[in-house]
Amino acid sequence: MNSVQVGIIGFGTVGGGVVRLLRDRPDLLSRRLGIPLVLKQVADLDLIRPRSVTLPPELLTTCNQEVLDDPDIDIVVELIGGVEAARNLVLAAIERGKHVVTANKALIAWHGNEIFAAAAQQGVEVAFEASVCGGIPIILALRQGLAANRLREILGILNGTTNYILSRMSQENSTFAQALAEAQTQGYAEADPTLDVEGIDAAHKLAILMALAYGARLDFPAIHVEGISRLEPLDLQFAREFGYAVKLLAITRNDGNKLEARVHPTLIPRDHMLATIGGPFNAVYLTGDAVGPLLLSGQGAGALPTASAVVSDILDLAHNLKLGLPRRLPPLGSEAALATHRPVKPMTEVVTNYYFRFAAKDRPGVLSQISGILGQHNISIAAVIQKGREVKGAVPIVMITHEAQEAAVQQALRAIDALPVVSPPTVFYRIEDPHLHAAQI
Amino acid sequence: MNSVQVGIIGFGTVGGGVVRLLRDRPDLLSRRLGIPLVLKQVADLDLIRPRSVTLPPELLTTCNQEVLDDPDIDIVVELIGGVEAARNLVLAAIERGKHVVTANKALIAWHGNEIFAAAAQQGVEVAFEASVCGGIPIILALRQGLAANRLREILGILNGTTNYILSRMSQENSTFAQALAEAQTQGYAEADPTLDVEGIDAAHKLAILMALAYGARLDFPAIHVEGISRLEPLDLQFAREFGYAVKLLAITRNDGNKLEARVHPTLIPRDHMLATIGGPFNAVYLTGDAVGPLLLSGQGAGALPTASAVVSDILDLAHNLKLGLPRRLPPLGSEAALATHRPVKPMTEVVTNYYFRFAAKDRPGVLSQISGILGQHNISIAAVIQKGREVKGAVPIVMITHEAQEAAVQQALRAIDALPVVSPPTVFYRIEDPHLHAAQI
Repeated sequence: MNSVQVGIIGFGTVGGGVVRLLRDRPDLLSRRLGIPLVLKQVADLDLIRPRSVTLPPELLTTCNQEVLDDPDIDIVVELIGGVEAARNLVLAAIERGKHVVTANKALIAWHGNEIFAAAAQQGVEVAFEASVCGGIPIILALRQGLAANRLREILGILNGTTNYILSRMSQENSTFAQALAEAQTQGYAEADPTLDVEGIDAAHKLAILMALAYGARLDFPAIHVEGISRLEPLDLQFAREFGYAVKLLAITRNDGNKLEARVHPTLIPRDHMLATIGGPFNAVYLTGDAVGPLLLSGQGAGALPTASAVVSDILDLAHNLKLGLPRRLPPLGSEAALATHRPVKPMTEVVTNYYFRFAAKDRPGVLSQISGILGQHNISIAAVIQKGREVKGAVPIVMITHEAQEAAVQQALRAIDALPVVSPPTVFYRIEDPHLHAAQI
Repeated sequence: MNSVQVGIIGFGTVGGGVVRLLRDRPDLLSRRLGIPLVLKQVADLDLIRPRSVTLPPELLTTCNQEVLDDPDIDIVVELIGGVEAARNLVLAAIERGKHVVTANKALIAWHGNEIFAAAAQQGVEVAFEASVCGGIPIILALRQGLAANRLREILGILNGTTNYILSRMSQENSTFAQALAEAQTQGYAEADPTLDVEGIDAAHKLAILMALAYGARLDFPAIHVEGISRLEPLDLQFAREFGYAVKLLAITRNDGNKLEARVHPTLIPRDHMLATIGGPFNAVYLTGDAVGPLLLSGQGAGALPTASAVVSDILDLAHNLKLGLPRRLPPLGSEAALATHRPVKPMTEVVTNYYFRFAAKDRPGVLSQISGILGQHNISIAAVIQKGREVKGAVPIVMITHEAQEAAVQQALRAIDALPVVSPPTVFYRIEDPHLHAAQI
């Protein structure tokens, strides 16, 4: 093989970044590969819209099918986004024996199992480094660099939009709505921010990381997902008083039995490495049983960081093509992964630490009633803040707990919210604090 | 190929870790690889010494040659350390057509070019992920994950011993000697700590990262190296007053012309991601022109973190062997790297910010004399601390500068040290502070 030829479908922000890297550094890339890497064709339905990079007209087409049907194209890069159209496109490319590179986390989270099975059958590879944390090579790390480890846990800041919003809320004491508007102005949030702010995007990425970490089928629906849109500045302040920052964390944990898999706003100690990850940055903090704790952090989105990952995938597949090797590594790190289902705990079985904010209508005796109910449910209090400030006619009582089971917490909060002296609903968040162990008593 | 067989030479700390991983998780590894990974033989001159892991006697030998000559062994893992004996061993393994995995940074820094050339000639691979930052997959990231980038700079905390010592000096206001003794007690420093504390180990690793980052021959002798053994607690205190932490940084920078390559104690802003890397941890902070800034941090040493990297290398080579592919990726990421020399700036050409501590014997007029000489050499002062505390009969005047050229700094300090009002030698350190730009005037 004298060259490797690439076709791109989707000439938007990331597509533009990929085109730019492929075209402005042919020497670097062919030096890496040993043979030229050729951009053969770029398809997009809209070729009128202005772009940051220009291409000769003969490389452009409005017809995706042209890329799929071009026998010279070895690698198809799917960058159209969305789910159903992308699925059809990727399956069609695989059917034609083409290798696929995609940055599409929703596609992999929902249809990865089907796509990877089709790729195995056709003997081609599907690469998706850009689908999680943009340019951070976390998929490479899980699939190869940490391949000797049993992964114990992953804590990830996997969504830059929410991390930016939380950073602004925390620094400026602004509301979610204000910080979201600012994020939209800055280009960090989309017009419809639902996928980001409700935690769905982070959950897509967590599903991918889990499949790689545990060598198992993708299981996106098993992940418990809560977003940040109901977070109040008050809770960020109280969290800070307890020494915590609030982050939207994607969490998975493997104690050898059922897995934990959850995305929700989380209190973490302000000196935790993840607490210092600000603005639009992403980070993955993981623990392997051999490597110990490991942090990777960088820009999780943007044209060039994402294109950096896409082009590294293209190079990886191109190396195989050059050597006449259709398929070197299975997408999830082992061929057995697709046949392996790892069950996830229902949220009620999760044991962790909690932050509660009760709204006390009437102070005398409230704390004893609340703590009585918590005690009945085996929930032990680690710290309490009771302050005079009134919020909507009630006085907040804020506490953090030792380790408790989610089912017990939900039962206790239902009982407490039924007390006449408390204004429901009680606000609660989960805490990740390695120093806040289970109750001593 | 039905299995891949591994021979280990060197059954010390890391060797024990590798043996443990290969033996306590055969299922995980063969699931990854698709075929069994077999530990065929372990050689060490001393088989008497107690070890944390035991092996059946038939797997052990005191004769390295047995491993080299065993035709069943596909991959030889070199873990004896040192330079000359390791070089002979690795070259002998390559000559016999075996793939090699090594954790030996000194070996690669000094003899990597020769070893990689021999491997290219024999069509085998030499993998060395464990040689830099233990289990952190930084070599994988540079060789593959960031392959589409032009690397702009790398700032690394590449040596855990010195980072531990600096953390202790900073937290406890202790001297270098006290902190070193503590590091030795804790097992973080060796009896002869020279390679670590004088920065040589970090420079070995920087040489390796540079070759990968720039796709060029290894050039260890071109790196400027200063260690931490002369650091005084006083300078850590003054640094803190200016808002800086002191770290032993390995620095390389590529502005398109000559490279920078230096290891020395460095002041970095206390809110820089690298400033928060404490104790025995390692970290690499790099900037690629596409990916932007990226941080990887984890345990840089220790039996299991290092073994994690060794076994990931073994798996990578084993995948190639399984597919009948003798050599997939050249060690430095491109076959052209060994033929490429990238010249390094002499230290005198480096432009950066500086910290000076002058010992003023006589206060009135000293500052004006010092600043006059600095001005003559185009060195502009960004901040000054002048305090009453006497140190050995002199009063410290501490300043940080805007950007200046090292040659000018050295000339100016020679002139200042010749002043009758100053006790030589003036202490100076370099600063990495993106916010401290060149002088405005």
